[in-house]
Amino acid sequence: MKEFMGKDFLLNNETAKHLYHDYASKMPIIDYHCHISQKEIYEDRQFSTISEVWLGGDHYKWRQMRTNGIDEKYITGDASDLEKFKAWAKTLSHLIGNPLYHWSHLELQRYFGIYEPLTEDNAEEIFNRCNEVLKTLTVRKILKDSDVKIICTTDDPCDDLHYHKLLKEDPSIDTVIVPCFRPDKANNIEKPDYLDYIASLEEVSGEKIGSFRKLCEVIDERIDFFTSMGCRASDHALEYIMYEPADEETIEKIFAKRLSGKAVDKKEELIFKTAFMRHLAHVYQEKGWAMQLHYGCKRDNNRAMFEKLGPDTGYDTINNYAPSSEMADFLNCLNEKGDLPKTIIYSLNPNDNAAIVTTMNCFQGDGIRGKLQHGSAWWFNDHKKGMLEQMETLANDGMLANFIGMLTDSRSFLSYTRHEYFRRILCDFIGTLVENGEYPNDEKILKEIVEDISYNNAVNYLGFGK
Amino acid sequence: MKEFMGKDFLLNNETAKHLYHDYASKMPIIDYHCHISQKEIYEDRQFSTISEVWLGGDHYKWRQMRTNGIDEKYITGDASDLEKFKAWAKTLSHLIGNPLYHWSHLELQRYFGIYEPLTEDNAEEIFNRCNEVLKTLTVRKILKDSDVKIICTTDDPCDDLHYHKLLKEDPSIDTVIVPCFRPDKANNIEKPDYLDYIASLEEVSGEKIGSFRKLCEVIDERIDFFTSMGCRASDHALEYIMYEPADEETIEKIFAKRLSGKAVDKKEELIFKTAFMRHLAHVYQEKGWAMQLHYGCKRDNNRAMFEKLGPDTGYDTINNYAPSSEMADFLNCLNEKGDLPKTIIYSLNPNDNAAIVTTMNCFQGDGIRGKLQHGSAWWFNDHKKGMLEQMETLANDGMLANFIGMLTDSRSFLSYTRHEYFRRILCDFIGTLVENGEYPNDEKILKEIVEDISYNNAVNYLGFGK
Amino acid sequence: MKEFMGKDFLLNNETAKHLYHDYASKMPIIDYHCHISQKEIYEDRQFSTISEVWLGGDHYKWRQMRTNGIDEKYITGDASDLEKFKAWAKTLSHLIGNPLYHWSHLELQRYFGIYEPLTEDNAEEIFNRCNEVLKTLTVRKILKDSDVKIICTTDDPCDDLHYHKLLKEDPSIDTVIVPCFRPDKANNIEKPDYLDYIASLEEVSGEKIGSFRKLCEVIDERIDFFTSMGCRASDHALEYIMYEPADEETIEKIFAKRLSGKAVDKKEELIFKTAFMRHLAHVYQEKGWAMQLHYGCKRDNNRAMFEKLGPDTGYDTINNYAPSSEMADFLNCLNEKGDLPKTIIYSLNPNDNAAIVTTMNCFQGDGIRGKLQHGSAWWFNDHKKGMLEQMETLANDGMLANFIGMLTDSRSFLSYTRHEYFRRILCDFIGTLVENGEYPNDEKILKEIVEDISYNNAVNYLGFGK
Repeated sequence: MKEFMGKDFLLNNETAKHLYHDYASKMPIIDYHCHISQKEIYEDRQFSTISEVWLGGDHYKWRQMRTNGIDEKYITGDASDLEKFKAWAKTLSHLIGNPLYHWSHLELQRYFGIYEPLTEDNAEEIFNRCNEVLKTLTVRKILKDSDVKIICTTDDPCDDLHYHKLLKEDPSIDTVIVPCFRPDKANNIEKPDYLDYIASLEEVSGEKIGSFRKLCEVIDERIDFFTSMGCRASDHALEYIMYEPADEETIEKIFAKRLSGKAVDKKEELIFKTAFMRHLAHVYQEKGWAMQLHYGCKRDNNRAMFEKLGPDTGYDTINNYAPSSEMADFLNCLNEKGDLPKTIIYSLNPNDNAAIVTTMNCFQGDGIRGKLQHGSAWWFNDHKKGMLEQMETLANDGMLANFIGMLTDSRSFLSYTRHEYFRRILCDFIGTLVENGEYPNDEKILKEIVEDISYNNAVNYLGFGK
Repeated sequence: MKEFMGKDFLLNNETAKHLYHDYASKMPIIDYHCHISQKEIYEDRQFSTISEVWLGGDHYKWRQMRTNGIDEKYITGDASDLEKFKAWAKTLSHLIGNPLYHWSHLELQRYFGIYEPLTEDNAEEIFNRCNEVLKTLTVRKILKDSDVKIICTTDDPCDDLHYHKLLKEDPSIDTVIVPCFRPDKANNIEKPDYLDYIASLEEVSGEKIGSFRKLCEVIDERIDFFTSMGCRASDHALEYIMYEPADEETIEKIFAKRLSGKAVDKKEELIFKTAFMRHLAHVYQEKGWAMQLHYGCKRDNNRAMFEKLGPDTGYDTINNYAPSSEMADFLNCLNEKGDLPKTIIYSLNPNDNAAIVTTMNCFQGDGIRGKLQHGSAWWFNDHKKGMLEQMETLANDGMLANFIGMLTDSRSFLSYTRHEYFRRILCDFIGTLVENGEYPNDEKILKEIVEDISYNNAVNYLGFGK
Repeated sequence: MKEFMGKDFLLNNETAKHLYHDYASKMPIIDYHCHISQKEIYEDRQFSTISEVWLGGDHYKWRQMRTNGIDEKYITGDASDLEKFKAWAKTLSHLIGNPLYHWSHLELQRYFGIYEPLTEDNAEEIFNRCNEVLKTLTVRKILKDSDVKIICTTDDPCDDLHYHKLLKEDPSIDTVIVPCFRPDKANNIEKPDYLDYIASLEEVSGEKIGSFRKLCEVIDERIDFFTSMGCRASDHALEYIMYEPADEETIEKIFAKRLSGKAVDKKEELIFKTAFMRHLAHVYQEKGWAMQLHYGCKRDNNRAMFEKLGPDTGYDTINNYAPSSEMADFLNCLNEKGDLPKTIIYSLNPNDNAAIVTTMNCFQGDGIRGKLQHGSAWWFNDHKKGMLEQMETLANDGMLANFIGMLTDSRSFLSYTRHEYFRRILCDFIGTLVENGEYPNDEKILKEIVEDISYNNAVNYLGFGK
């Protein structure tokens, strides 16, 4: 029996151990997609209790506590931090085979030096030990200890990037921190509060947005601003990668209709979004940005809880409607016009893996290694099996060696251990191929592949290496 | 090489063996979803030949015999029992990797003490040995030997539950046997014989069903009757979990149209079913019942054989249309009104696993451990790989420890060995996580998880523990 | 660590090794579906460089080179053969876990006696060694050395099968080479050049095609001709297996509309194709042919490259729309009329596996072992994982022992090593079941199953054994 989450956790043969310990574990971290707060980095936030870090906003954990029959009081309610921590510890024991089990214990090991499993019985003791450590653990210390070299946050076009500016000017921080452009609110024409968002854009830009063309102009200015702040990628949450082309007049009519306060129908929504995404892609391509497309999620499904808690509280699911034919047509349309930027595609539906890889590979080229990427296993797939399936599909149908690898997609500063989790799984996958005689034991190439996927590929892909 | 289906069948490490032999194998059986006959239990049916038991109505076996090129005469035709058994034995040898191979041999081992593989060569000898044993093997003896504590049969709302009554009053049987409410015929408004079924309901209830509202009232009375007979769950076969809401007037119009003898179109069908299922869910929630939703099956595809043999004869397949967005909207609609009962969801399409688990987890709560459940791998997925994938998905995206576990869904009294099959796979899955250092070797918690999934969770979930 | 692609490549236990080395590896090859040139067999083509063989038309390799950022000059452009080979060698090192890595090295081992891994460093040396061998390696020598007994090429109904005739009359070749009937161009009524194709058919047949009925008559004559040339199977590339029935008048109207030069809409296209496929199936059934249905592919997605390079150049992807309900209805419609031929179904979408197996098994019968077949893992699924999943699904839900096994689907004469690849995976799958005690170690039956799937089943299924 292997030691519980010991030195060789997830590493099941000698090659895997060698690749992980000698190469992967020594690489720094680029976290090119996450949701942490610029402000908290700048202000070097500290946390008073482990509950604050772990349970303050982590909807992954909330969701599982509900599944375990825990009363909402101990989840998002007014129970004490210790009570909440105990409720979580009780839940955690039930999470056999769940990534939260591993993430939680990796965090306890790496950041708190705690190596025993957390249970209901030792919850209070561990709560206290963690809180003791937290007295000296600031956000910047975590970044330094985790060897995080580059972070891309997630930011709205209206954001003034105030803390990004301050961080840029702050010589005391080594990590490069840049924004990522996420214009979902400008794209979601079907949302009831769309006009409020347009008003915000108008305020930020000081310009009246009376047409689709003007919307694009204003957005372009924001892209320029983000570029000046070091941004190198956008991010988009789409229902699916749609393709509903129309002429300019039709698009302007739809936008005008919405501006007048009327709702748009589904087809109009798709036409508008296709047009807006085409425009954005065109600009991204010019700027050399990478475009991230996330799809396959249906959000805020539990209306009763949404009314109480708002979005991102644990009520999202997989939407399994995503025609690969539209994805292919959309990419082709961009490619034909020379407007296809570097693109990273993620679906929440694990069944989409093969269709994503085979579709994106129809548009590779331009002398870029892996111009189109299948993003690392996302959210509900961010576990050993999900990661392994993503890697296997990429290896089988595409080119694993060019993969830009892991990101946390997280709101938590303790989540850098997920890079470790990913790298262990990667090294075990590669090591197993070598041990089985399915790939040569060529030290030089294996080192290169492991280091590339761990760090170098993403750095080069996003242009941080230049 | 491991012994063929020996003591440690499917158990591949020491922890797995320990968990199975010391805990799982010692738990009794609750079979909360099956299709066995109340009457045959009451009358303590005996079988004269193994062909009668195995080949009398088992469409899984028939289907494979056809795949093997066996003439229908030896399947459902007038060949002798021995001839049919030989045809099956010949087919069985070809079923390498198929669960029927394992189920058949588990049954030979556990009920007949036969440990050699069945082949065409030894078919006649084994036929005779089995028949000898059958002289002393009654239905009730099987239940006792298999340690079956609780059985839920499957029953139509019109059923008078006559044998259930007799069984309740019979002190000589230890197994608790209760009905399960399956109102598919009242829901399937698109079927040509729908009005015949409404007539049956009218006869049973002594009331005229002239409106949708009246239909609901009559159904409610049947639910009361089933409750009085110990029923704690319903079962529904749906094309998919649909959501097509409409107002009361529209629903009444559709029902009136159908009562008048006219057919309904697809949209009307979906509106009616959404409304009827909403009503049922509301009542189930009040009664504390669990609602089982089975979907993803297209039945009776071979019309030529349907004309000859009728339904449930081996001609069903996976229907791969099932939008998860409608499933989410349906559950939300119930939840918002406080009408969401405990719910168990099963799809015949293995690709639906992740969407089911992530969707149901948007509606967990009410202080119930695992209020919504992903049902055990169903029918065409009821094999090692299918079970393992269901468990892995549940562990990865949900909470395996709360799983209510296995059911036979069977018409055969010999099928309790499928619980053994399931438990071996479960213990191997859990044991492997522990051996790999992915979960701590905590005896107390592991014992609890294994015993809970084998038996306790289902008993508590369905309220038999109270 | 196992030797890199050594004697026991992919064979992970003693039973697997025994089954492969003693049985599978000794069976000849039937390649019942491929795209090699009749002419090149007849003329016993030779190749001057390994680049000509490997990179002259292999869009699998082209696609990966583009993914690796290689300039098109070194792919389909005017770079020298050595330059192209070096670009490929550089790409190959990145293909860890990809079947191209294994295929390429199996070919180097079996046909060129080269056992070291190909890298950028040794590319020139290996290029020269290969070219040396190629001086004595003709197409017919490859067929002989590979023990290829039977080949079915892929041919258009208009083809005069000139080289097939010559091959039939050539006593110097032992391999049986027959055509396979692929009438896609007659089916694809939506294509802009459809009328050109109808004109070709008219020319070949010397008859005017003025109606759908006449189209069927002309096609029937071509089927007769193909039958006379030894053809025993058809092949069809479908978007999905559609079912849109209509009466004869409607079908004739649609065909007349198209003949008049007008385009048909999607529904008309589906009606026409359903009708044409029904007609073809009827004739195939009479002839005793097997009908191959390939679906789930969206082709030529990159319009810019299509303009430059034409079809089959590496720009195809998975189309994930394929309702299993229509597949079931189409097969039922044939079956009900006695028109269902032996049928082999392949989807490019690996998610379709279970739906295919469970659907086809609704129509097994007629005393034919495995009348309906799930085709071997196709194209983007033609790798270890894809093959294994196809075999597992077939074993779990159908009958693996009846499987007609591997085909190359290839344009290359070096691709017979893919049969070896398949057989190793098959033997490992079966051997593992036996070693795990999940199937008895019955030498006679195991030998039979392995030899059947490797060769005998396909020979018998296609009637070559008669």
